[in-house]
Amino acid sequence: MGSKYKELKRECYEANMQLNALGLVIHTFGNVSAVDRATGAFAIKPSGVPYEELNAEDIVVVDYDANTVDGNLRPSSDTKTHAFLYKNWDDIGGIAHTHATYSVAWAQAQQDIPIFGTTHADHLTTDIPCAPPMSDELIAGNYEHNTGIQILECFKKKEISHTEVEMVLLGNHGPFTWGENAAKAVYNSTILEAVAQMAYLTLQINPQALRLKDSLIKKHHDRKHGKDAYYGQ
Amino acid sequence: MGSKYKELKRECYEANMQLNALGLVIHTFGNVSAVDRATGAFAIKPSGVPYEELNAEDIVVVDYDANTVDGNLRPSSDTKTHAFLYKNWDDIGGIAHTHATYSVAWAQAQQDIPIFGTTHADHLTTDIPCAPPMSDELIAGNYEHNTGIQILECFKKKEISHTEVEMVLLGNHGPFTWGENAAKAVYNSTILEAVAQMAYLTLQINPQALRLKDSLIKKHHDRKHGKDAYYGQ
Amino acid sequence: MGSKYKELKRECYEANMQLNALGLVIHTFGNVSAVDRATGAFAIKPSGVPYEELNAEDIVVVDYDANTVDGNLRPSSDTKTHAFLYKNWDDIGGIAHTHATYSVAWAQAQQDIPIFGTTHADHLTTDIPCAPPMSDELIAGNYEHNTGIQILECFKKKEISHTEVEMVLLGNHGPFTWGENAAKAVYNSTILEAVAQMAYLTLQINPQALRLKDSLIKKHHDRKHGKDAYYGQ
Amino acid sequence: MGSKYKELKRECYEANMQLNALGLVIHTFGNVSAVDRATGAFAIKPSGVPYEELNAEDIVVVDYDANTVDGNLRPSSDTKTHAFLYKNWDDIGGIAHTHATYSVAWAQAQQDIPIFGTTHADHLTTDIPCAPPMSDELIAGNYEHNTGIQILECFKKKEISHTEVEMVLLGNHGPFTWGENAAKAVYNSTILEAVAQMAYLTLQINPQALRLKDSLIKKHHDRKHGKDAYYGQ
Repeated sequence: MGSKYKELKRECYEANMQLNALGLVIHTFGNVSAVDRATGAFAIKPSGVPYEELNAEDIVVVDYDANTVDGNLRPSSDTKTHAFLYKNWDDIGGIAHTHATYSVAWAQAQQDIPIFGTTHADHLTTDIPCAPPMSDELIAGNYEHNTGIQILECFKKKEISHTEVEMVLLGNHGPFTWGENAAKAVYNSTILEAVAQMAYLTLQINPQALRLKDSLIKKHHDRKHGKDAYYGQ
Repeated sequence: MGSKYKELKRECYEANMQLNALGLVIHTFGNVSAVDRATGAFAIKPSGVPYEELNAEDIVVVDYDANTVDGNLRPSSDTKTHAFLYKNWDDIGGIAHTHATYSVAWAQAQQDIPIFGTTHADHLTTDIPCAPPMSDELIAGNYEHNTGIQILECFKKKEISHTEVEMVLLGNHGPFTWGENAAKAVYNSTILEAVAQMAYLTLQINPQALRLKDSLIKKHHDRKHGKDAYYGQ
Repeated sequence: MGSKYKELKRECYEANMQLNALGLVIHTFGNVSAVDRATGAFAIKPSGVPYEELNAEDIVVVDYDANTVDGNLRPSSDTKTHAFLYKNWDDIGGIAHTHATYSVAWAQAQQDIPIFGTTHADHLTTDIPCAPPMSDELIAGNYEHNTGIQILECFKKKEISHTEVEMVLLGNHGPFTWGENAAKAVYNSTILEAVAQMAYLTLQINPQALRLKDSLIKKHHDRKHGKDAYYGQ
Repeated sequence: MGSKYKELKRECYEANMQLNALGLVIHTFGNVSAVDRATGAFAIKPSGVPYEELNAEDIVVVDYDANTVDGNLRPSSDTKTHAFLYKNWDDIGGIAHTHATYSVAWAQAQQDIPIFGTTHADHLTTDIPCAPPMSDELIAGNYEHNTGIQILECFKKKEISHTEVEMVLLGNHGPFTWGENAAKAVYNSTILEAVAQMAYLTLQINPQALRLKDSLIKKHHDRKHGKDAYYGQ
């Protein structure tokens, strides 16, 4: 039974260990998941296990309703948020959640990260959205499930697409990022943290710093992701 | 005689070395202690010994009045503060004192660290208290003993419990943290430093940043420490 | 055919790997080139290849019009900027482009880095120039070629020499640096990043900090680069 | 002849390598010297040699007038400043000069570092002095010799003793530190950098932060350096 998910758990394990190696989390903070669309299940870090003690066989596999289908440990306390996103966004393959310093600081400041430069525009063409904290009713209810709702409503309200903007800040909490697989989700967490630090410093140097102008946003996005893209191999 | 405390000294030694490895101290700064409630004694770092030169056998064992019961070196100059806390709080097993950068900065600024996010709320539900500097009389008197008094009075005045808030800043000095054992005390020092940095950056980004609302504080605390906790294994 | 450029590609490869080892770039960001004036060609990093996967044989060699003369991969998307600079400045041997944190922050703030101290004056005698973002027409046109034009016009307008000031910030983008060879270009990127961080902190401590006075600028420059220089061997 | 200074050169070499290992300098920045009072000579880093390429035999030995008495390389361009200090302060054994980030930032801001906490008071009881930049006449003259004069005049004007305050900032330049030997001078450079960062952060958190009160300054100094000191072994 376990062997069915062996590769998925390995992918998830390695992405989680990257999170720690890259300095985006300490202790037991954060979690990464990887989905297998064929079986309708995803692998996720077990709850409260330090990265130093984590093994590939500890990874838990759950379905889109967060019911465990493989593994002996309790899955991450954020599992229902992952489940909600996988259910609603059927084109993503991995999700990462970190407590990276600058990303968390912007989330705690409850501010979108303005697009100030081409490092940002190489990856997305809008400000990085910060979803507001939930209402007290939603917090008291199915909290982690409702966190997923909060993310979707933020994207709907701001009219941005999750395939173009693969990251979000949750107000007072921290970042969630996603991508075609778990490694890409972790990659996006590192981009978010780098951009968050650069934007922080930019505003310290010049509180009146201007957002990148539209022509430059378009140019940097198109040369990397447009139909005539010439970035990469 | 020394062998009686061998394990205690080993625990204390390893926790001290962690302090250094984690970048919370440099040179001879800081100290960690570990208590053995059965014998009424605790092990602590010797005074002024660089971490690079510290050996497990150098650890000093003292009683709750700070009298040496084992070891040839002079104990940490902060020993009486540890002794006072062990005497008054009979449910703690270890204490750590660091000069970690962001923790010290908040202590020097003489400000409580506001609870801005869930990273903070996962560990405690109040602001991290900063005890004011002592009166000149207390400083000129039994200084390190009085430092313990200062911590207890701060907790009494703010009506917070040392089992719920396992950390404090001493105004103009730095942090003390504690826990069920020495390793947990060091763990709490790392949490404090991470939260101190995030709170610093939050206020730099948004000087009007709001404290985490009560419903979110309660939710994050309860899911990790409440009676229906579902965080961890 | 490839062997003709073997040494040039090796120099370019090693300089690129330095960029990554020194923490000036992450992932696939940035690029370094090295020119061979005899053959009128320069070697440059291939586009979008992570440093971890880069090999010396992946390096691409192009002429001053950015046409590939050796190599199977697509050259860096910034190749035309390098080409323009090599064509116009026939006395430089290498160019580096990074996304180093503090350098990018100043570029995003669209501000020159003021000369505040001798660390800066040991390397150049003027503020580090920040070229303004291009007009929309130039962006929509031959963007990377026009980036080269933007740099030259900035130097012309500010009346500074590229042999005396071997670095520039591109507004909203990041730094370009150059030198007698690729290693010197990378060296200049590290100097720029160090100076950018020091200047940032200086203004945080003292927003009214004064530029270094002319006599000190002259002294530090002359003792290192003047006709009676006594710095170095 | 060279063997006479072999041990002195070894001490100087190791202290210089520590400077680099501790992250206080990059490339060829900074220098450490060690004096031999018996022969009236001191060993110092050669000028402009990268730490990666430095060997013990490269160290230059000069007398108090900066004339080379041993070694084939040109001594540090700051040699005359060291010579002046050794000549005037006959109780110091080593001097270090760095370009450490936070120390330089305070020097560029031309501000004394206020004594905000016990980390500072454990080492000295006054603000860390920042000497103003020299007059244009002194700069144009015997610059490095005059830098020594500038340091002595700063201490005289502020009525502080070089045996109690083993560090100074040179306005727009950076820190010089000293001590009983070269290793202690380097130790003082690390203390200065740590205190400089903490003071910077303190003022960012609380621009109205108060200096440590006199009773605490006295207490922390006395327990470590007073006649009834009980810190250390």
